[in-house]
Amino acid sequence: MSDLHALDTYFSEKRETHLEELKEFLRIPSISALSDHKSDMLNAANWLADSMKKAGLENISIDETKGHPVVYADWLHAEGKPTMLIYGHYDVQPVDPLHLWESEPFDPQVRNNKLYARGASDDKGQVYMHVKAIEALFATEGELPVNVKFCIEGEEEIGSPNLPAYVEDNKEKLAADIIVISDTGMQGPGQPAVCYGLRGLCGVQIDVKGAKGDLHSGLYGGGVQNAIHALVNLLDSFRDEEGSITVEGFYENVRPVTDEEREAYRALGFDEEALKEEIGVGELFGEKGYSHLERTWVRPTLEVNGVFGGFSGEGIKTVLPAEAGAKITCRLVPDQDPEEIVEKLKSHIEKHKPVGVEVTVTEFDKGKPFITPFDHPAIQAAGRSYEKVYNVPTAYTRGGGSIPIVAAFDEILGLPVVLMGFGLSSENFHAPNEHFHLENFDKGLRVIGDYFHEIAEFPAGGLKKS
Amino acid sequence: MSDLHALDTYFSEKRETHLEELKEFLRIPSISALSDHKSDMLNAANWLADSMKKAGLENISIDETKGHPVVYADWLHAEGKPTMLIYGHYDVQPVDPLHLWESEPFDPQVRNNKLYARGASDDKGQVYMHVKAIEALFATEGELPVNVKFCIEGEEEIGSPNLPAYVEDNKEKLAADIIVISDTGMQGPGQPAVCYGLRGLCGVQIDVKGAKGDLHSGLYGGGVQNAIHALVNLLDSFRDEEGSITVEGFYENVRPVTDEEREAYRALGFDEEALKEEIGVGELFGEKGYSHLERTWVRPTLEVNGVFGGFSGEGIKTVLPAEAGAKITCRLVPDQDPEEIVEKLKSHIEKHKPVGVEVTVTEFDKGKPFITPFDHPAIQAAGRSYEKVYNVPTAYTRGGGSIPIVAAFDEILGLPVVLMGFGLSSENFHAPNEHFHLENFDKGLRVIGDYFHEIAEFPAGGLKKS
Repeated sequence: MSDLHALDTYFSEKRETHLEELKEFLRIPSISALSDHKSDMLNAANWLADSMKKAGLENISIDETKGHPVVYADWLHAEGKPTMLIYGHYDVQPVDPLHLWESEPFDPQVRNNKLYARGASDDKGQVYMHVKAIEALFATEGELPVNVKFCIEGEEEIGSPNLPAYVEDNKEKLAADIIVISDTGMQGPGQPAVCYGLRGLCGVQIDVKGAKGDLHSGLYGGGVQNAIHALVNLLDSFRDEEGSITVEGFYENVRPVTDEEREAYRALGFDEEALKEEIGVGELFGEKGYSHLERTWVRPTLEVNGVFGGFSGEGIKTVLPAEAGAKITCRLVPDQDPEEIVEKLKSHIEKHKPVGVEVTVTEFDKGKPFITPFDHPAIQAAGRSYEKVYNVPTAYTRGGGSIPIVAAFDEILGLPVVLMGFGLSSENFHAPNEHFHLENFDKGLRVIGDYFHEIAEFPAGGLKKS
Repeated sequence: MSDLHALDTYFSEKRETHLEELKEFLRIPSISALSDHKSDMLNAANWLADSMKKAGLENISIDETKGHPVVYADWLHAEGKPTMLIYGHYDVQPVDPLHLWESEPFDPQVRNNKLYARGASDDKGQVYMHVKAIEALFATEGELPVNVKFCIEGEEEIGSPNLPAYVEDNKEKLAADIIVISDTGMQGPGQPAVCYGLRGLCGVQIDVKGAKGDLHSGLYGGGVQNAIHALVNLLDSFRDEEGSITVEGFYENVRPVTDEEREAYRALGFDEEALKEEIGVGELFGEKGYSHLERTWVRPTLEVNGVFGGFSGEGIKTVLPAEAGAKITCRLVPDQDPEEIVEKLKSHIEKHKPVGVEVTVTEFDKGKPFITPFDHPAIQAAGRSYEKVYNVPTAYTRGGGSIPIVAAFDEILGLPVVLMGFGLSSENFHAPNEHFHLENFDKGLRVIGDYFHEIAEFPAGGLKKS
């Protein structure tokens, strides 16, 4: 096992140096979405590669893609030990609206033990922690307890358009036993969490067309199908009054939540009253028989994201609208397949198509759900590392959102994914005044250092996805 | 009875003169909606007053209102005979888009026996016919067979904002036995029609509000009520699958269509196939057990005119929308009361309010339905006058639309309303290349002339609304 004391001493001594280094990294405005920042993207990639070299990593390369490059590095001398692939990103979100920032987004400042800068938490700070954990292990132990590969991309904030192809083309180079990602959040301040599943996504746009053009509601009203009436009838058919999705076979492949998971979620003591207050609703609403966490973590959804048709200006226009449309997306859970669900949506629409209109369905991009079993040793090991440093039980959570690149890794490389996040949901990712609680920077370095040793307890090939 | 032969001779001799005079009237660009045309409005009112004077009418006045003036005239020397109030308007619609006109809108041109100009059919041409019919009766008979009052307004195309107050303030001056309006259409070329009823109107906007703001559909989806889901559920509850309105008591006061009326509508031989072709639908849709004409003439409706909420741009946005809304209007038939129907809509909304959202209801302007009984002698008399000139049976029709000012006349003066239209639906009212078929100008003059004599068959006070 790791010598947490030695790591602790090392990180304490180097704290100022590390913070100054991280600030250097944060000063590079590597906004992937803006073409003006192309050279900043290269500077950030180079800075990261240098930092990896200093830390003792090898085979460092800045790999071209059709977009911004991927920074690769490895250290593969832990014979017989598992290989850990660490994914993260060096690009950041744009900074608008600039006037809402209390200090400049690319002039990092520490206030109240929080580091303010764009990318402090998402994700430069967390990527940097992995590099420094490795530096610390080399410094205190002379070598790493496991094999390590880094794959740090520059396009996460624009949807990782080129990473799946990069992973596909570099399957051998990226081969590993587990993937570790630090780009998510903790359960709350002082409450560490390992996220072991995320929902997938699929969706369709439904366009309803009645008459050739809008009609006068006086002259034709009552005698011709109204596209909005037809649409709302169709939309209402997707869900029952209690929030269950009524699309045939929708729940067919949903992996049931285990008693152990339910118990673990209950133990988190999620505060539904606080949530109601936060989002401003009088009551929560969702599928009967499930708690709010279960509804958002382990149950699939179908949400109408937008609806449009007819006249929406001020006042009245007595039109019988010829066209109406809606956008629908589903969050999917294991083992639902996005392709299959879209087919089921289409069958449902066909079956419930109202008379007197044509209905067109357009598919959106799809993403698979992912789950690493709750009791997978790599997940449980991460939980133990958190507990050693935070001295409280780790929460084993799932996320309601979708990180498509996680699903892509899961699909292409077929490895267990461990999401070890150190951010807090209050840290304004993607918003003005992004910051990172330095308490979690400090503790996180120790958690990551320890996790290398936890994983070293398993033999190479001993962490297969069940 | 009238001497149709004498009228015929008079109108034939004067045809060129009348057409030239009407062209003069049409050259005045009396667009009520545009303030630049204020002096044109006065010119048109003066032109009409002069024309009435030449025709032999008396007590001519141009009565101020808060907007454009009303032209009043009368002739009240037919002792013991009924008084006919003739309503029409001297204002016209704007002419945009000008480039689509084949000849200038205010440079009247005759092509293929059609008079092209803004206002040719709606409504200067039809108003002018009434004035000329009176001139002809004076010329051929020396007097009028009934008493006559004219009330020709200048704000019909902007919704008659000041006419109800004018009518209310001049109840005595406008007192009459029947109101005759020539501002509607015939059933088709060569097919005369008397319209004896119009639908009323009421409506509401429904605004649904869930959470304080839009939520991330991954983080919250499945656990919080979606404003669009709630709205479509509510909207879908207004109508059953067969097109009947399910609002409690909605049909309560609907006057049943009589067997005689149904037979009369059937006899019109309405071509539903042609309608489908015209509006581009594969099938018509509406309340079970009613023909298309019945659905649009004698049955009330509830139509969603617009719906909005969430994201309607290109592609996908995985938002759980906090707000959504819809606009609904009802076309009402006798004896539905708009105030009562709005109350019923509100009760329905309250009863079907989905959980987890707030619902706000805003009322729109209301208009009552109107009907002069099908078998009212003034209606049947109009039918006879048409038949004498057109030599085909008159259609007794109702309109699906609402002309609020007709309902206002009906309500304030409590008189039978006779809609004797000479327009054709193909004549581009409100659109470029408005025109008037001169066949109906010629025949209409004779119909109106005859109608004065038809009405003279009744004693004063003998035409009460049943």
